[in-house]
Amino acid sequence: MTRLELAEKIQLIKAKKGLSWSAVAKKVGQSRIWTAAALLGQMQMTPKQARAAAKLLDLSKDEEFLLTTVPYKGSLPTAVPTDPLIYRFYELVQVYGTTWKSVIEEEFGEGIMSAIDFTMELERVPDPKGDRIKITLNGKFLPYKQY
Amino acid sequence: MTRLELAEKIQLIKAKKGLSWSAVAKKVGQSRIWTAAALLGQMQMTPKQARAAAKLLDLSKDEEFLLTTVPYKGSLPTAVPTDPLIYRFYELVQVYGTTWKSVIEEEFGEGIMSAIDFTMELERVPDPKGDRIKITLNGKFLPYKQY
Amino acid sequence: MTRLELAEKIQLIKAKKGLSWSAVAKKVGQSRIWTAAALLGQMQMTPKQARAAAKLLDLSKDEEFLLTTVPYKGSLPTAVPTDPLIYRFYELVQVYGTTWKSVIEEEFGEGIMSAIDFTMELERVPDPKGDRIKITLNGKFLPYKQY
Amino acid sequence: MTRLELAEKIQLIKAKKGLSWSAVAKKVGQSRIWTAAALLGQMQMTPKQARAAAKLLDLSKDEEFLLTTVPYKGSLPTAVPTDPLIYRFYELVQVYGTTWKSVIEEEFGEGIMSAIDFTMELERVPDPKGDRIKITLNGKFLPYKQY
Amino acid sequence: MTRLELAEKIQLIKAKKGLSWSAVAKKVGQSRIWTAAALLGQMQMTPKQARAAAKLLDLSKDEEFLLTTVPYKGSLPTAVPTDPLIYRFYELVQVYGTTWKSVIEEEFGEGIMSAIDFTMELERVPDPKGDRIKITLNGKFLPYKQY
Amino acid sequence: MTRLELAEKIQLIKAKKGLSWSAVAKKVGQSRIWTAAALLGQMQMTPKQARAAAKLLDLSKDEEFLLTTVPYKGSLPTAVPTDPLIYRFYELVQVYGTTWKSVIEEEFGEGIMSAIDFTMELERVPDPKGDRIKITLNGKFLPYKQY
Amino acid sequence: MTRLELAEKIQLIKAKKGLSWSAVAKKVGQSRIWTAAALLGQMQMTPKQARAAAKLLDLSKDEEFLLTTVPYKGSLPTAVPTDPLIYRFYELVQVYGTTWKSVIEEEFGEGIMSAIDFTMELERVPDPKGDRIKITLNGKFLPYKQY
Amino acid sequence: MTRLELAEKIQLIKAKKGLSWSAVAKKVGQSRIWTAAALLGQMQMTPKQARAAAKLLDLSKDEEFLLTTVPYKGSLPTAVPTDPLIYRFYELVQVYGTTWKSVIEEEFGEGIMSAIDFTMELERVPDPKGDRIKITLNGKFLPYKQY
Amino acid sequence: MTRLELAEKIQLIKAKKGLSWSAVAKKVGQSRIWTAAALLGQMQMTPKQARAAAKLLDLSKDEEFLLTTVPYKGSLPTAVPTDPLIYRFYELVQVYGTTWKSVIEEEFGEGIMSAIDFTMELERVPDPKGDRIKITLNGKFLPYKQY
Amino acid sequence: MTRLELAEKIQLIKAKKGLSWSAVAKKVGQSRIWTAAALLGQMQMTPKQARAAAKLLDLSKDEEFLLTTVPYKGSLPTAVPTDPLIYRFYELVQVYGTTWKSVIEEEFGEGIMSAIDFTMELERVPDPKGDRIKITLNGKFLPYKQY
Repeated sequence: MTRLELAEKIQLIKAKKGLSWSAVAKKVGQSRIWTAAALLGQMQMTPKQARAAAKLLDLSKDEEFLLTTVPYKGSLPTAVPTDPLIYRFYELVQVYGTTWKSVIEEEFGEGIMSAIDFTMELERVPDPKGDRIKITLNGKFLPYKQY
Repeated sequence: MTRLELAEKIQLIKAKKGLSWSAVAKKVGQSRIWTAAALLGQMQMTPKQARAAAKLLDLSKDEEFLLTTVPYKGSLPTAVPTDPLIYRFYELVQVYGTTWKSVIEEEFGEGIMSAIDFTMELERVPDPKGDRIKITLNGKFLPYKQY
Repeated sequence: MTRLELAEKIQLIKAKKGLSWSAVAKKVGQSRIWTAAALLGQMQMTPKQARAAAKLLDLSKDEEFLLTTVPYKGSLPTAVPTDPLIYRFYELVQVYGTTWKSVIEEEFGEGIMSAIDFTMELERVPDPKGDRIKITLNGKFLPYKQY
Repeated sequence: MTRLELAEKIQLIKAKKGLSWSAVAKKVGQSRIWTAAALLGQMQMTPKQARAAAKLLDLSKDEEFLLTTVPYKGSLPTAVPTDPLIYRFYELVQVYGTTWKSVIEEEFGEGIMSAIDFTMELERVPDPKGDRIKITLNGKFLPYKQY
Repeated sequence: MTRLELAEKIQLIKAKKGLSWSAVAKKVGQSRIWTAAALLGQMQMTPKQARAAAKLLDLSKDEEFLLTTVPYKGSLPTAVPTDPLIYRFYELVQVYGTTWKSVIEEEFGEGIMSAIDFTMELERVPDPKGDRIKITLNGKFLPYKQY
Repeated sequence: MTRLELAEKIQLIKAKKGLSWSAVAKKVGQSRIWTAAALLGQMQMTPKQARAAAKLLDLSKDEEFLLTTVPYKGSLPTAVPTDPLIYRFYELVQVYGTTWKSVIEEEFGEGIMSAIDFTMELERVPDPKGDRIKITLNGKFLPYKQY
Repeated sequence: MTRLELAEKIQLIKAKKGLSWSAVAKKVGQSRIWTAAALLGQMQMTPKQARAAAKLLDLSKDEEFLLTTVPYKGSLPTAVPTDPLIYRFYELVQVYGTTWKSVIEEEFGEGIMSAIDFTMELERVPDPKGDRIKITLNGKFLPYKQY
Repeated sequence: MTRLELAEKIQLIKAKKGLSWSAVAKKVGQSRIWTAAALLGQMQMTPKQARAAAKLLDLSKDEEFLLTTVPYKGSLPTAVPTDPLIYRFYELVQVYGTTWKSVIEEEFGEGIMSAIDFTMELERVPDPKGDRIKITLNGKFLPYKQY
Repeated sequence: MTRLELAEKIQLIKAKKGLSWSAVAKKVGQSRIWTAAALLGQMQMTPKQARAAAKLLDLSKDEEFLLTTVPYKGSLPTAVPTDPLIYRFYELVQVYGTTWKSVIEEEFGEGIMSAIDFTMELERVPDPKGDRIKITLNGKFLPYKQY
Repeated sequence: MTRLELAEKIQLIKAKKGLSWSAVAKKVGQSRIWTAAALLGQMQMTPKQARAAAKLLDLSKDEEFLLTTVPYKGSLPTAVPTDPLIYRFYELVQVYGTTWKSVIEEEFGEGIMSAIDFTMELERVPDPKGDRIKITLNGKFLPYKQY
């Protein structure tokens, strides 16, 4: 069983049990986003976190162990995602890629926003014209080193 | 001259004049991110916005006009970006794609976050261990329609 | 079992039982197109809809449950479809892509036709020279937001 | 000058002159969609149609002649379009591809919807919640021949 | 079992039984080429044709039924075929593609040769310098419709 | 100037002069298909053939010379052609690839149909239901050598 | 079981039995290279050759039979091989491709070196600075036919 | 001017002057294959070799200099070559890739045939059934190092 | 079982047993990097090395044998790696590719750094601002041969 | 003029002037590797560094300015490099990718080696059997953040 197969299984169990990611995250002791990412095969859990998740989701010992390994990351079956929800984020990269580059480099100099020393939040913003999704990306600026 | 060639030219002029995107945005009357995206060939300007930008950046009449057309969007030369700053955002799509999908669908039901009815902000967050970049994505949730 | 494997199974059952999509749609309570899309693994069913479909198609409890999850969308094995019937639609995107863009933007301004707030119908149009297929796409225009 | 370069030029001229596709189509004597497709480099015009278009758009004799040749069709720079408006149509192919196949084959038997013996219309549908775009595809059903 | 898996199985059975495609085609009641294409997973058989094929090839009821469904067409594992025999046909498309286009359009006007209303024959042409293969493609010309 | 640029130029000249491929072929002294392929940049002409073509098409000495070189063959800008007329031939490769392989190998043994020791003809077949295109491919069978 | 799966199995058996390709080739009655290619799923064996190979390698009747069928050729999992030994040959195609073309066409005229009427040998050339591999490719020149 | 543009120019000059690669190689003082590869933009010439080539081919000082730089190697416009002569070599990699690997590793152990410490020859082998091309590849075996 | 499946299994066993690569390498008698590469399916072990590894990791006889075969190398599922740790090395190739080429060729002349006669080390470099990873690549320079 | 076109020009000037990267680096005041990377279009120079480089290499004011902008990074024309020297580094990623991942994660935990807070050195290591190239990569370990 690979991490991605386990991720699929976890999605089904979670749905059948009617658990929310918030509920799982509470048991695991981390944020909703990180917990979902870890259980969907993209982050390494500590043994204690894996224990908590396994208990809640009725995972076997082997599955619990698998959660404590570092996964081969990358959750998508194709380079350009076909799923519409995920594609919209790819579209942002295509449309705003050079904008991010230009604005960040103007403000910070040559470097990047870390995707490792990084956190993310996702909130619902009520709006009479239709609720909105607010995603906050927060990454350390890493300047290129001259040498 | 295409929008992307104009974008390249604008980047050089802006750098030579030592203009910041904030300064350009102020003249144009929109946010820094949107203004940068528009001048980098991804958004359509109104004639008045184009006028303001052209004046500040010494663009010709034809270039000014070009800014008022709807561009063929997509700012990257390859499907997977090679530039490290931009790649990190692609990496987020790869690592967090299924997480976004799962968390949004749990909270909102079947649908997507609009990349059209959408705004974005980018801020510097001072931090003694190294300043951070905070990007806020704000898009309307669009539910799939049953019919 | 994935949604796509279930879709394949459903196609065979439906064929063996001699059921039409209209008959299935009637039980499910939605249109023929949406019902087919949902059972072919592209839309999420409500528990009640899944119940009706499962009953008609002799699906197991697990398969019925699977129909109520949001699928990873995208029904094709390759980016450019090889099946001639489906390829003709890809061909329309290739041949008419810039035409759609130009006509819609002229009429509505900068924006897109939603593929989410969207319905579709398919009808047979009798014609002595050979019957015709009429497909009606109906999507909300979503204007780009300036900010 | 290629047909695609001419298409780009025509788009700019049309925008500068403030001409609508309907106005151009009227002079050309065909529908709005077909006329746009032809001038965007996807269809062959008769000498008379090309004459009318050239006059309205101030094209040179060589450009007028180019409009009467059969173009190498395909209007997009990449197999998967990056422009959001055009991508939504590609998304429909990805999401509804197998649905079209299944519904058409159930109704008509083994065959395809012609993209050659084909017409298309595009209308605005007023809607208080936001106007909608209605696109009607109309293609002859072509049955596979047994031999 | 998919149509392609069935195709592989049929190839082996046919080889073991020492059956020729002509012999199979005779029982099925269609031409050698069409019959081979159908049994290799590219065409839909009538129940009667499937019956005849199943009998000759000792197929199960489920396999027989599968032959009566419309397959997802496309017989090759890669966009550019690696098998030398099949590649030579791809090479013809690469080398003669623009020639076909130019000669057909000169003779018939804007349109295509149908690959649906289409028949094909394959014959051996004895030749003292080495026998030759003669393939005759016969497709209806379909003119593009102006509208 | 490359052979492909020359090919494009020749197409325009031929169209303007209202010449048919048959007329050009007559002067060149070869068949219509081969002549078109050669002038579209896929075959090498003898100096005499190039002379005849250059005279008829008003080519310069350098262009005439170019026709006598062996071109880098392959006439299509993408691996999978986007032009509908040419795509139909690619579709034949996709749909009939394994059929050609199976029928030829059954009849001739392990080998290929040569695309080099090869001729092709294209004829119009009048038909009350719409004229048909008949293409005859004729290639030497080349058996694989055991060693 | 496919030919490629059988190839993998044969590699393991051969290694376990400590057999060399020369030893296998001797029993089969062909050269070392051809025999290896055939058993690795790229050539068709006669029943007698398959018999000899099966006996030596303890293959089942079905596996023996499989060796007598014509395989779908192409031994590599990706278009550009990742294995360093095999990549070096791809590198030769990249670096020397146009050289082969130019030298062969200068010497022989327009045509190709057959990869079908073709033999190959591989020898060890002792060298004090490190032994060398000598590979001799021998293919019939096939001239393009004018018609 | 790039090395590949220079290569194209050299091909034309060589053809117009009616020079053979052997004649050029003689002046340059290396083999026919290496000389062709160098002038086609794949090898670095010494100043003296470049001098000799430039004189024979009437190259400018800048072009002569360009020949003494190390080129970015790779002579083909696509990963899988479309030109039939060059494709046949790619086909050899596809068909014989695993055979080369297996035979070389059996004989020499884990390692590769160098494409750097490498020479090649090409000869015509007269044959009454059609002359043959004999290509001899000669590369040092490089064993993988354990450490 | 393939080498890559065995690699996955070995990773899990190693993790469960809490073994470090150094500990495994000590038993195997080679460096940490080489040992890891071998057990992850990229290098061939001697029977003695395989014996030692199998004992430590409780592998079966067949698995032990598999370690002594030369694997089809290439450890990544896609040409551009999606895993962030591995992608950073691909990024170095993208960003520094031409720099390596220019600096090495200036210093050594036309040639390459061998990836076969090659060793690698990886060390931790303590640093108060965050420990660093130091990787030393050491490959023989192989000069291109003129001939 | 783009950064990559400038890089090409700089390479030629440097070669003609017989300058070494060390000599250029000395004037620029940074290491040889970084200086080469910057002038080959991958790093941003300070105005002072650009000044020094421009003086040495006779660049125009515009070219000097271009060196002070942040480039769109990525120096290779294809995702998999065709140049043999550069390919060997890609090969290391393919062969050692999972080894780097496993060894680094075992030693440091979940994280990556930074390609931004990163330095590199390249040295010649004299060796009687042929000099060797030693490349030292030195990057900060960046641990994944839990949140």
